[in-house]
Amino acid sequence: MQITVYEVGPRDGLQNEGAVISTEHKIELIEKLAQSGVRHIEATSLVHPKWIPQLSDATQVLAGISRLDGVHYSVLTPNLTGLQRITANQVDEIAIFMSASEAHNFKNINKTREDTYGVLAEVAEEAQKMGLRVRGYISTVFGCPYEGEVSLTESMRVVEKLLAMGVYQLSIGDTIGVATPRQVHEVFATFDKEWGATWFAGHFHDTRGTGLANVVAALQHGISTFDSSIGGLGGCPYAPGAAGNISTEDVVYLLHGMGYDTGIDLDKLVEAGQFIQKILGRELPSKVLKTATG
Amino acid sequence: MQITVYEVGPRDGLQNEGAVISTEHKIELIEKLAQSGVRHIEATSLVHPKWIPQLSDATQVLAGISRLDGVHYSVLTPNLTGLQRITANQVDEIAIFMSASEAHNFKNINKTREDTYGVLAEVAEEAQKMGLRVRGYISTVFGCPYEGEVSLTESMRVVEKLLAMGVYQLSIGDTIGVATPRQVHEVFATFDKEWGATWFAGHFHDTRGTGLANVVAALQHGISTFDSSIGGLGGCPYAPGAAGNISTEDVVYLLHGMGYDTGIDLDKLVEAGQFIQKILGRELPSKVLKTATG
Repeated sequence: MQITVYEVGPRDGLQNEGAVISTEHKIELIEKLAQSGVRHIEATSLVHPKWIPQLSDATQVLAGISRLDGVHYSVLTPNLTGLQRITANQVDEIAIFMSASEAHNFKNINKTREDTYGVLAEVAEEAQKMGLRVRGYISTVFGCPYEGEVSLTESMRVVEKLLAMGVYQLSIGDTIGVATPRQVHEVFATFDKEWGATWFAGHFHDTRGTGLANVVAALQHGISTFDSSIGGLGGCPYAPGAAGNISTEDVVYLLHGMGYDTGIDLDKLVEAGQFIQKILGRELPSKVLKTATG
Repeated sequence: MQITVYEVGPRDGLQNEGAVISTEHKIELIEKLAQSGVRHIEATSLVHPKWIPQLSDATQVLAGISRLDGVHYSVLTPNLTGLQRITANQVDEIAIFMSASEAHNFKNINKTREDTYGVLAEVAEEAQKMGLRVRGYISTVFGCPYEGEVSLTESMRVVEKLLAMGVYQLSIGDTIGVATPRQVHEVFATFDKEWGATWFAGHFHDTRGTGLANVVAALQHGISTFDSSIGGLGGCPYAPGAAGNISTEDVVYLLHGMGYDTGIDLDKLVEAGQFIQKILGRELPSKVLKTATG
């Protein structure tokens, strides 16, 4: 069975790294990922550079990538102003985002959830007019750094709203890495029953070591796309030094070991991880990477 | 449901640390673990100090621990010579060990598997005469650093032999951390069918990040004891810098999040992890520990 590994390192990873890396290195990383067989890459973010200076070169990155056939490039897009920075031929899709919990949504987007829907609908509509697919992220589904537990009812309301905007997939995020498989079963069993598993991707953080166990739990409900970050790039903005996204090398090792096909060459993927680890000059969290470089 | 977390950090962890820590600090670590609610602690090893100089103070450690009621202390015991270094009142149980694969058994014990059985049977018998319970470890069940894949048939032969020696539990080891849940399902479904799950414990290493996912897989077959190491102490002797045992903090977080009871106070456990991390002066692999100290 084919599982899609959706690489978010160049965006979700690098935006949480202290060091700013050069545009050339970002482009090289994206190209190495594509060469390893990764077919979905979120390349950068169009969030205003004032908020994410690490990715202020978004348009240069998008302009600079040598594209590989069959690879889908995406960009995180907060609003119309962001969308207007790119042209339709630069990406295959954009991603819109908001949080399941009110407090995190407000801290992250500076709007209530209710006020966010209009902004996202506008971007989604315009992107679709440009011929781009739209992916959605919902953060804090498994827990919020400000509110603690987040009710499934609240998450489901956000899912409903984003699906109505025409997103082709919703990535369901454990933003602070608190989930365990029990909660993953609960969330995805409910979502599967309500809308069908094929609408969803799992976006797990490994902040407490449960990331891959959560992937396995989600697989059991038919989830077949998982977001991950090369090397485990990034980190948790709420716990300095703690891990962020699950690492692409580790999730690919897991999936291959379980008999799933990802289309990715693990050795080449590890080379991409070694490349960015060297650029950043810090030991990245990926465990598989450590077995290769230790 | 109650799950037993079997702490092996003071032995399996410390024997793989480069730094040698003082006897006093080892004793303090063991006492802190007991105070956090850990009920099974492998305190040290009676393997000859020539082979494991880090634990050459085994008898001083055993003599020095202030014991808590209800806590079971164990010691790894390779042979009669080792056993003769202790008295029956110092521990509740001993652990014997060998490998499922011939090459690893020979490298580790310097004997063929066939020649190992006699040595272990002798220790087991003598320990039982002393009134001690005997636990067994089988290494390399999920893969061997020298032979690669290890057949289930080979592992089953070793299980059979050790059960016949009167062990009360066999800890089934993924010594090099290569297992994924698929293989865990295969091994424990087979063992459960053949002998019953209650005879077995899961001993997973997190070398490739799959440790907790493997715990969840084993739980599904009725395995209710898991070995782990505080802080993720130790490492992989076959990949310098890579992770060894799953960390106790992380497995306890996972189990509690899934609704299992361990009897352990996670905050106090994290304090034990912080203690040994500080002594060793290196960042330990436990992810939960990083969220507390980052």
